[in-house]
Amino acid sequence: MTSITKLFGSYGYNTKLDSFNDEMKFFGKMSILDWCGVAYAGKTEPVSKIVAEMVKEENGVNQARVITSGHNVSARGAALANGATGHALDYDDTHFLFVGHPTSSALPTALALGEELNSSIEELLLAYMTGVEVSTRIGHILGYSHYNAGFHQTATSGSFGSTIVASKLLGLNEDQTINALGIVSTRASGIKSQFGTMGKPYHAGMAASNGIEAAKLSKLGFISRDDGIECDQGFFQTHGWDKKIPPRAIENLGDDFLFPEIKYKFHACCHGLHSFLEALDELKQENNFNPETIEEIEIETNPSWLKVCNIEEPKTGLESKFSYKLTAAMSIYGKDTSNLDTYNDEICFDENMQKMRDKVRVIPNETLSNTQSKISIKDGSSNIKNNHDLSDEIEKNVLETKIVNKSSSLLSKPKSDEISKILNSKENKVSSLVDCLIK
Amino acid sequence: MTSITKLFGSYGYNTKLDSFNDEMKFFGKMSILDWCGVAYAGKTEPVSKIVAEMVKEENGVNQARVITSGHNVSARGAALANGATGHALDYDDTHFLFVGHPTSSALPTALALGEELNSSIEELLLAYMTGVEVSTRIGHILGYSHYNAGFHQTATSGSFGSTIVASKLLGLNEDQTINALGIVSTRASGIKSQFGTMGKPYHAGMAASNGIEAAKLSKLGFISRDDGIECDQGFFQTHGWDKKIPPRAIENLGDDFLFPEIKYKFHACCHGLHSFLEALDELKQENNFNPETIEEIEIETNPSWLKVCNIEEPKTGLESKFSYKLTAAMSIYGKDTSNLDTYNDEICFDENMQKMRDKVRVIPNETLSNTQSKISIKDGSSNIKNNHDLSDEIEKNVLETKIVNKSSSLLSKPKSDEISKILNSKENKVSSLVDCLIK
Repeated sequence: MTSITKLFGSYGYNTKLDSFNDEMKFFGKMSILDWCGVAYAGKTEPVSKIVAEMVKEENGVNQARVITSGHNVSARGAALANGATGHALDYDDTHFLFVGHPTSSALPTALALGEELNSSIEELLLAYMTGVEVSTRIGHILGYSHYNAGFHQTATSGSFGSTIVASKLLGLNEDQTINALGIVSTRASGIKSQFGTMGKPYHAGMAASNGIEAAKLSKLGFISRDDGIECDQGFFQTHGWDKKIPPRAIENLGDDFLFPEIKYKFHACCHGLHSFLEALDELKQENNFNPETIEEIEIETNPSWLKVCNIEEPKTGLESKFSYKLTAAMSIYGKDTSNLDTYNDEICFDENMQKMRDKVRVIPNETLSNTQSKISIKDGSSNIKNNHDLSDEIEKNVLETKIVNKSSSLLSKPKSDEISKILNSKENKVSSLVDCLIK
Repeated sequence: MTSITKLFGSYGYNTKLDSFNDEMKFFGKMSILDWCGVAYAGKTEPVSKIVAEMVKEENGVNQARVITSGHNVSARGAALANGATGHALDYDDTHFLFVGHPTSSALPTALALGEELNSSIEELLLAYMTGVEVSTRIGHILGYSHYNAGFHQTATSGSFGSTIVASKLLGLNEDQTINALGIVSTRASGIKSQFGTMGKPYHAGMAASNGIEAAKLSKLGFISRDDGIECDQGFFQTHGWDKKIPPRAIENLGDDFLFPEIKYKFHACCHGLHSFLEALDELKQENNFNPETIEEIEIETNPSWLKVCNIEEPKTGLESKFSYKLTAAMSIYGKDTSNLDTYNDEICFDENMQKMRDKVRVIPNETLSNTQSKISIKDGSSNIKNNHDLSDEIEKNVLETKIVNKSSSLLSKPKSDEISKILNSKENKVSSLVDCLIK
């Protein structure tokens, strides 16, 4: 078979900023802005404070800063904490080929190591975009076979992406980059049973930290394997891979980019719920539903989501983010599903919500992709239907406005504008971006 | 099923020094002395220096010391480096139920965190013995199904053991200890394709560091799952477990101990080779073999070892440690297989060695356990046979002499004596043990 480790190691080593087209650069900046807002808003989450505290106890190293606390710690430590912080709200970007959240690990790696090395924003952009392109393709190879076996690509594929980010920032040569992927093949971990616990955001931090560890070890001469991903008893074989390589995962590497298919969350809950929430939002614009008279809501979705976000009777704000039934009830009652505060413990026990929640039926439909859903609302004699596909392209200016609005609401307008400015100015250093996130 | 996470979390929380019988305490001290010698001798290995350098760059934290460099780093960093150092020579203890090297992660966790917390040797002994007992039992449940799927228990089960060690030293309560096992369920990793590379000793460091990370996070309030090991899509289900729980893994927990079945290496190579090397040593005492006239050597071994240590034409000193054929040739030529220096690149290309190597046939025999082997040497008309079982008990005084001799040769006699003295004195602190290993 193709040597995946060498293919992506060489690709990662060889990219330059002009390897990327404008679309790639647009999405690169959008994802960074989106992550910054989500991470900033996530700084007060318990998991963010806990991981920050754990690495703060290692305070004394002046490599990189933790955005939650502002403390100077090791780059590995900052990546661990900032990774958990950025994914704490589960509101960051998703790639459906990667099957998870590629920015959530790649960017914290770039921020932490970029601070340590005093890298420029240009260097960060190059390393970050390359890392996400690689992790998306590796995630696509691992695919649903890996995911359904119980692994969480955000942690696993994310580790490979972060390794590429770190390898580029550290200036590894081609062999060292390939070798770093070999090292991280044995360090990457993360299982899906942690969903709904602090373990999920921790996964992003683990991956971000793993990448720095593997690349630094490789630079120092640590030798692993140049086929660590695909070899016998390598990462693929031991982690639920179905032995298929989807063509898009390896074809046109360097010419086409999968990164721009990334999706952003405009509802503050699990991405598996967004397609039906969009369909429902559209219906609400045309209909005036009366919660009292609705008899039944049917949601059809790809069966793979049922293990992810189908908590039938959520009991905590966190669990409510993984519930078709309760988020449908929230939406019907006009709750703002883009607002983080909507998802709280109280709403799970609200009588109206519970009544509406129990009118919802969630139906697996294998003919739907994981970005598609159908909704049907039975209200008296009328049966109102809609469907939505998150893969449908949104015009770039519409998308940019949505992301700027989202990050402005999470960061404040001036801070969001400042980050946009930093991302577009060549003179800036990574530390200026971290400054914005700490302040 | 039994809640494995709760069972071992509760057990780990509840042990006291007087929970252990004298046999357990004897083996606890023997394993520590054995590890100290092996780790001390491993300080100059490239992998030890590299991992030490990586964490040295994080220098500035005064939690614990790296034995290779003497630098003060974080406890997680010291555990990572000291773990890799202790397993760099692959000369440390092995437990055949654990399927790997339990001390290699549990002790570096205890040393690093014990230094940070200024723990006593008594506290170290309690935490370490409890951790090894737990990781041996969890490793036994994962068993050969996990191992043959490509996972390396030293890294995976080792992470659970190190978590118990760290939980006890940190004084976690019972729920926190159980929760720490839940956290490490998603952090544990390590695959067997890294064997023969620096990745193998790195596994011990990964596990040692994972345990500290998980226990510290749990103490700070990080919530994972109290069934993270055995739940749907938990660690067991995602990591090649065959869904069987061998009775000895959970029975008589607290009354009987599996730790004392631990085996020590008296040959400086993979443990899979020791049984036939012992059988050959016995034959050599009774026969005077002439390498020139030997026509064929047949080694019969449990098939599981063929994926581990059957490199047919080793090309490096490291590879030679995983080769039935070459170590048989070394032994026939009277090379000292207990001497670390015997395993070098040159010996792989020695003409006599290669000739003898190619006369060796390795035959899988399913009727043999993984501690048993048979050897048969065809020399002219005679066919000389022997067999050996590493499980056969060695008298304690004989074993102690062997270990003291081994550690004296690796550490020097005075240093080995000093470590024995420290282990037997209640007043001593963990740092005094670390002092010995740095000097």
